[in-house]
Amino acid sequence: MNHEFAIGGNPLPVAVLGATGAVGQRFVQLLDGHPWFRVAALTASERSLGKTYADACHWVLPEPMPIWARQMPLMASDPGQMDLRLAFSALPSDSARQVEPLFAAHGVVVCSNASAHRQEADVPLLLPEVNPGHTHLVYHQQVQRGWSGCIVTNPNCTITGVTVALKALLDGFGVEQAFLVSLQAVSGAGYPGVPSLDILGNVLPYIPDEEEKMEWEPRKMLGRLDGEQVELARIDLSAHANRVPVAEGHTVCLSVQLGRRASLGEVAEALEGYQGAEISRDLPSSPRPVIRLRQEPDHPQPRLDAMVGGGMTTVIGRLRPDPILDVKMVVLSHNTIRGAAGASIYNAELLVRQGLVAI
Amino acid sequence: MNHEFAIGGNPLPVAVLGATGAVGQRFVQLLDGHPWFRVAALTASERSLGKTYADACHWVLPEPMPIWARQMPLMASDPGQMDLRLAFSALPSDSARQVEPLFAAHGVVVCSNASAHRQEADVPLLLPEVNPGHTHLVYHQQVQRGWSGCIVTNPNCTITGVTVALKALLDGFGVEQAFLVSLQAVSGAGYPGVPSLDILGNVLPYIPDEEEKMEWEPRKMLGRLDGEQVELARIDLSAHANRVPVAEGHTVCLSVQLGRRASLGEVAEALEGYQGAEISRDLPSSPRPVIRLRQEPDHPQPRLDAMVGGGMTTVIGRLRPDPILDVKMVVLSHNTIRGAAGASIYNAELLVRQGLVAI
Amino acid sequence: MNHEFAIGGNPLPVAVLGATGAVGQRFVQLLDGHPWFRVAALTASERSLGKTYADACHWVLPEPMPIWARQMPLMASDPGQMDLRLAFSALPSDSARQVEPLFAAHGVVVCSNASAHRQEADVPLLLPEVNPGHTHLVYHQQVQRGWSGCIVTNPNCTITGVTVALKALLDGFGVEQAFLVSLQAVSGAGYPGVPSLDILGNVLPYIPDEEEKMEWEPRKMLGRLDGEQVELARIDLSAHANRVPVAEGHTVCLSVQLGRRASLGEVAEALEGYQGAEISRDLPSSPRPVIRLRQEPDHPQPRLDAMVGGGMTTVIGRLRPDPILDVKMVVLSHNTIRGAAGASIYNAELLVRQGLVAI
Amino acid sequence: MNHEFAIGGNPLPVAVLGATGAVGQRFVQLLDGHPWFRVAALTASERSLGKTYADACHWVLPEPMPIWARQMPLMASDPGQMDLRLAFSALPSDSARQVEPLFAAHGVVVCSNASAHRQEADVPLLLPEVNPGHTHLVYHQQVQRGWSGCIVTNPNCTITGVTVALKALLDGFGVEQAFLVSLQAVSGAGYPGVPSLDILGNVLPYIPDEEEKMEWEPRKMLGRLDGEQVELARIDLSAHANRVPVAEGHTVCLSVQLGRRASLGEVAEALEGYQGAEISRDLPSSPRPVIRLRQEPDHPQPRLDAMVGGGMTTVIGRLRPDPILDVKMVVLSHNTIRGAAGASIYNAELLVRQGLVAI
Repeated sequence: MNHEFAIGGNPLPVAVLGATGAVGQRFVQLLDGHPWFRVAALTASERSLGKTYADACHWVLPEPMPIWARQMPLMASDPGQMDLRLAFSALPSDSARQVEPLFAAHGVVVCSNASAHRQEADVPLLLPEVNPGHTHLVYHQQVQRGWSGCIVTNPNCTITGVTVALKALLDGFGVEQAFLVSLQAVSGAGYPGVPSLDILGNVLPYIPDEEEKMEWEPRKMLGRLDGEQVELARIDLSAHANRVPVAEGHTVCLSVQLGRRASLGEVAEALEGYQGAEISRDLPSSPRPVIRLRQEPDHPQPRLDAMVGGGMTTVIGRLRPDPILDVKMVVLSHNTIRGAAGASIYNAELLVRQGLVAI
Repeated sequence: MNHEFAIGGNPLPVAVLGATGAVGQRFVQLLDGHPWFRVAALTASERSLGKTYADACHWVLPEPMPIWARQMPLMASDPGQMDLRLAFSALPSDSARQVEPLFAAHGVVVCSNASAHRQEADVPLLLPEVNPGHTHLVYHQQVQRGWSGCIVTNPNCTITGVTVALKALLDGFGVEQAFLVSLQAVSGAGYPGVPSLDILGNVLPYIPDEEEKMEWEPRKMLGRLDGEQVELARIDLSAHANRVPVAEGHTVCLSVQLGRRASLGEVAEALEGYQGAEISRDLPSSPRPVIRLRQEPDHPQPRLDAMVGGGMTTVIGRLRPDPILDVKMVVLSHNTIRGAAGASIYNAELLVRQGLVAI
Repeated sequence: MNHEFAIGGNPLPVAVLGATGAVGQRFVQLLDGHPWFRVAALTASERSLGKTYADACHWVLPEPMPIWARQMPLMASDPGQMDLRLAFSALPSDSARQVEPLFAAHGVVVCSNASAHRQEADVPLLLPEVNPGHTHLVYHQQVQRGWSGCIVTNPNCTITGVTVALKALLDGFGVEQAFLVSLQAVSGAGYPGVPSLDILGNVLPYIPDEEEKMEWEPRKMLGRLDGEQVELARIDLSAHANRVPVAEGHTVCLSVQLGRRASLGEVAEALEGYQGAEISRDLPSSPRPVIRLRQEPDHPQPRLDAMVGGGMTTVIGRLRPDPILDVKMVVLSHNTIRGAAGASIYNAELLVRQGLVAI
Repeated sequence: MNHEFAIGGNPLPVAVLGATGAVGQRFVQLLDGHPWFRVAALTASERSLGKTYADACHWVLPEPMPIWARQMPLMASDPGQMDLRLAFSALPSDSARQVEPLFAAHGVVVCSNASAHRQEADVPLLLPEVNPGHTHLVYHQQVQRGWSGCIVTNPNCTITGVTVALKALLDGFGVEQAFLVSLQAVSGAGYPGVPSLDILGNVLPYIPDEEEKMEWEPRKMLGRLDGEQVELARIDLSAHANRVPVAEGHTVCLSVQLGRRASLGEVAEALEGYQGAEISRDLPSSPRPVIRLRQEPDHPQPRLDAMVGGGMTTVIGRLRPDPILDVKMVVLSHNTIRGAAGASIYNAELLVRQGLVAI
């Protein structure tokens, strides 16, 4: 595919809302050199307004801050001040709840990483390789709210890879129940996030509100679009969330009860062969492959596997029978790429491809 | 209780087999000042024979090497060379399989931390606060094997705290099924053990043979002694084992299906109030309390809770309903104290109290 | 010595100012069971007033919060509200600058861990085993400021062990110059302190204002009391300060040019044999020994050596010739015990012994 | 420059000796897609012979094992079995001492990361941006030893960046003395290398033989080629070596006495502007830039700066006056790229450019 062609030649100018935080930085880094999008505005909270991005931002990524971003002035998150059709939101949830609707009302498609609107019935909770059809909710959203823009969300970072795995299993065999125990990286808590004294040589067996998201969000994404809303998938999920001293990469131990008996070989095939709908496959951020299945007993590991497929691939290993349910496995995905900024960008690419972003 | 009185005045001379490794060091440290036992012999593998303990041992504990141990000469693991009634074994499994029976045949009670003999029908797999009656197997063991001594084992470090928790639940409500996902400290792998390059900022989602032990050992300990053997408890267990960058303290996420409905309050009461049999309570190493139930949402943590009760208490937190099974919780225990050397010593104390060690 | 006798029977009631922070917690923990002092008041900032200590304090120490502290109400740092002769200050520097003089004016001896007053000419910067005579400054301080109480400070955590080492060398041979490169634990930055994303698997080669303190404070403590002030010692110091992923224990690489030639054996003897003035030796918190010299090439290490002497001893190792200056060594001390709360308590004990605290 | 053209079209077949270790893996990874070199042979110790690289190698790098390497058979380190002109040696020192001369005698140019031959008078200790002219020693080496090949070494990983910095200062102002205190990553110790129990949350203040190398090797590289040997530079160096819990990237705190007074601005200019000899600049592995000078007070950091210039750039920060010597700074370089495999490859490129590798 010719990515340049897809949107007619000129990269689309976009905004990054909440650009100075950890996820905001990841947006800026991933959009550097993006074939379809060009960052035209960076927003921040009041005390950073007017400063340049380089001055206001305590950059925490190993990849260097892009040159073009350094001198960009930080603006308020005010849609009236910018003439754009697309915005990426790395806003904290409180602020997202206020600000994102203003942008949507102003005609902007907001691809949001915030949890604020994920549970609303007319807001897609979207992973392109899982439920690209859920973007139809946008039409109801626009009608119902009188917006010319819209809000589209991506799920919690921890559940992203798990949902991809569950989708592959659901398509193949059905899924009844699943246990999920996460070992999550500190970057998932943003910056400054987790105090070092709490996590050096330690485990925190609790992350506020995380388990609730892990137990609910997959059911919306794996649910069936039924007219103007999504019927939640009937899958019972039980989650334990833990923080571990890892910088990037969320690991989830997953035990699944399938809808019908399947051999390990069939399960492996269903995972490895999973591709997602045609429309999700050949976008700039599409994971290649969607799922990588590792055979070595000691994989996936965050240090070694988080960057597979540019950080967009879901890496699975240790597939084996489960003595209680059917199969056990370990699922890894990169929490600030596949699980956050990369997810929103991939969503935006799908929306462009579906013609939902005015170009 | 007057501990000194319990064994009639003079501390019993004991051997530590495999004294230079990480668990061997923990035996030496915990036996420093023990009211009933006095270390009279330290054994090591061939290349250390004749050296002093201080010279041969790369000490890895924060607690200092006891003064009396420094100049002790390292001996071969040969029961003929020492006149002792009690030995603690920190031998690696291969070597334990050969050596421990020689000691038992020679009249020595061997309290072993090795996995070599745990699955044998006439060998107790023992936690005093869980199954003190299983020491009756010793009589069958002696008759069957023609030994005047015996071998008594303690379980795998990861499953120790979990088994205490399951026992409290079993007594209260019955237990049908449990999911166990461990986040294990590196000291569990001994020394040198896990290479730092593998675990710094990383998770290893695999520990060889660990899950098999986690799924089987509790069933023996929670089983019913039936004449000359233990009938395994009918509990389905499913385990995921992970290594995390923590020095000491194994954390386990536990989801349990009880035998009958119980409120969270009842479950909390059953855990907190659990005491074990009378005979296990007032020994020098008895955990005080057996179980500590933490109410704070972010406990237990290895850094903050591993040393509760001198490292012998099982610390439980995050008790809450489980959407699939009945209850979820997090269980922590100190892996080289409650889960290894401290376990063997506590076992030996029980055997002394039961009159199974000749004094 | 009979510690109880020393102050006439009843423990002295004391306040801990700024009790909820990391150093404040260490004061509370170290004062638990102290033979001379009993905590009678805990103070905190406005938003914690009226709460109990257990409710307001996010406890970060592995040692449990003392039972007696749990239900104590938090008070404002107002000397009028408490009838006490002695206060320990864990206040942040800004607040210490305002509050500590109010206490001193009100007749309270303030033993402060804050840096606010360390550079003032009439305020002792005190380590009992180094410069106990500097407490004479208190008389000038009281006359000059019209206070019935006083302020006595302890030095920066990083420089504490180094100053003890330099004092032993100074007494033995004179000291001309020293290079100091620190590898500092995160607990030195308080709580929440260093964000985990900044320090996991990383080194921060900069700690604001730290090198200035490292280069100046030893010169005051090693200086000669000359009438009403201290003449700074003429020692050139050059410091590099680094933060490393360690929880407790500051390591300093030290190269020293002595005033006169000395063999390594003589230097070792001077370090190991160093005792400090008679008056500093037999106090409840006196380090025993003052300096521990380790012979093993790979010591001192924070994990293994920070708690020597209950965390009050300065541990030195790797003594060897320096190709440029005279000798090189590595110095370790526990940063929140010897380097912070323990230092203030030890100072207070000296003041009691010197009759400077009204009893 | 057209790299392909430089060696006439076809990539030169090369061997990697000791390919399964941590540095061997880095060679394989860095040579993947190299414009001049193509890996034609991988060697390993006896127990791996005949296995494929994928089977014998426990891959520890985050970058994936190149596809072409997976099925390559492991061979003995025997020059008679391969027809090659160039070999990269990641052999351990003992084995390098035996094996490398066999290759050199057989006509192979050996670019070695081992320390075995670094101190020999006729063996270049080489950093292309520092002392490219030292390759003239090769002629003496060949004459003296009767070899048609040769051995060329790169320095110890810790001293690499420091030597680049010292060279820039030497050219600008002269250098008299320098203090070097390292904070080294665990990957510098190979695999399995440092046990995790030794380094998690800890500092090891000792690395065997490291300080001796740090104090000697720069003097050879900064020395003047005088006929058939190098006259060591007259610079006094004093080193402290520490291991810290970092995966990749060695940090060195450096204090330098210059040959003549210079302002900080002049020093900054000398560092930033340093380029090395013309011949070292435009090679495939040339660092771009040679030195990056960071202005932010909290840089360089291993996590954020080790990969600057593809891991070949020396990153310097915290330039400031030194109270004893002239200037202080912090120097970072990537220990397995610039400090090991990348160094040998860069050396080989220089040798090709100089016509010392027969093509």
